[in-house]
Amino acid sequence: MPKDGAASPSHWKAFASRRRDPATKREAVLQTAAHLFLEKSYGRTSLNDVAERLNITKPALYHYFRNKEEILLECYRLGTGLIEEILNEIALHCGTGLEKVAAFIYSYANVMTVNFGRCVMRLDEGDLSSEAFAEVRTYKRKIDRRLRSFIQEGIEDGSITPCDPKIAAFSIAGAVNWICIWYEPEGELPAEEIASQFARTLTQGLARTTTNGGEREVSRQEPLP
Amino acid sequence: MPKDGAASPSHWKAFASRRRDPATKREAVLQTAAHLFLEKSYGRTSLNDVAERLNITKPALYHYFRNKEEILLECYRLGTGLIEEILNEIALHCGTGLEKVAAFIYSYANVMTVNFGRCVMRLDEGDLSSEAFAEVRTYKRKIDRRLRSFIQEGIEDGSITPCDPKIAAFSIAGAVNWICIWYEPEGELPAEEIASQFARTLTQGLARTTTNGGEREVSRQEPLP
Repeated sequence: MPKDGAASPSHWKAFASRRRDPATKREAVLQTAAHLFLEKSYGRTSLNDVAERLNITKPALYHYFRNKEEILLECYRLGTGLIEEILNEIALHCGTGLEKVAAFIYSYANVMTVNFGRCVMRLDEGDLSSEAFAEVRTYKRKIDRRLRSFIQEGIEDGSITPCDPKIAAFSIAGAVNWICIWYEPEGELPAEEIASQFARTLTQGLARTTTNGGEREVSRQEPLP
Repeated sequence: MPKDGAASPSHWKAFASRRRDPATKREAVLQTAAHLFLEKSYGRTSLNDVAERLNITKPALYHYFRNKEEILLECYRLGTGLIEEILNEIALHCGTGLEKVAAFIYSYANVMTVNFGRCVMRLDEGDLSSEAFAEVRTYKRKIDRRLRSFIQEGIEDGSITPCDPKIAAFSIAGAVNWICIWYEPEGELPAEEIASQFARTLTQGLARTTTNGGEREVSRQEPLP
């Protein structure tokens, strides 16, 4: 997973050396823009701000992107690309439906702590053109469908308790997407610990289980009427 | 829990009769405004829109609220008020920490399907004055602290598996808050069913459990490295 925690000095260094390849420079623009979009909001970030942060001129920036929306869409594409990669890997390498769901939560939670991932869930899709908006919605729908299919698989292979996969997928997606709202890259909670606990409690539950003469007993509760 | 699913005819009826009391009329203004804020966004809703929907004049509206922000703040207050009521009831009437957490999820999920509740999590606090913003943040912090204290209680009374209460509270809050993003009042999923499944899977987990000669066995998985 690419590191993009901050607009680090390495980003403008990509432009400081003439020998760096265009792909590295393009990536530096995106990293810096994503950082600013999250820090100041998309609306309040200008291309001037991005150029200034990279220590380059605005025309130099236009060499890589035609406008701010193109940068925004590319941030979305990189973020959803990270999630898609995970989904493909999980579908290939994990066993039961429950294992797939747990692996998904763990990896997705990690993506929600890096800037391109945070952009996917935190920025306002309303800032995209209708074409780009449709593209992003299609990506998101695909992610949701895959998660639901993992849950369905788990119900069928007996690793997951029968439930409505749609509601279950919404609860998982909500818990994980919300990370992009509260997570602080410089905060006290390490991404790794968040991801592990999320994968554990969302699949195994909060309840402490005990055994009683062969009978499984979970600390049960009835929701309020 | 008050019904506020839509700006129903009953809202303008509150103004159609001269005999209705001012509290009913004030409530009708709030219900209608909340509905419009969620439907069109706060920024794109004018006081004219609210007055028009209620079939009254703008001066009549000023009898109840000085400006749009006052209406917004009142929507937040009503939404957080619903949640606070729940918290107090749970603290008084529930048993173990786990029972409290489950009751919290169930009731909070229900609040997230009514308009005042949806306003609390979906509208942009940045539209509030700094004083009102501070007030809303204080409410939200209080809710978070109470949820964490329920989880801590559960760890201490043995009903909840040891975990970081802060991370656990974030995962629950995220799952439940996200409802206000995807829930459709006219959609196919009943609020009651969402709330029940959320309470169940977030406390008991997705994993299907089996017993094996007295040994408890949960369908275990290891997250991807």
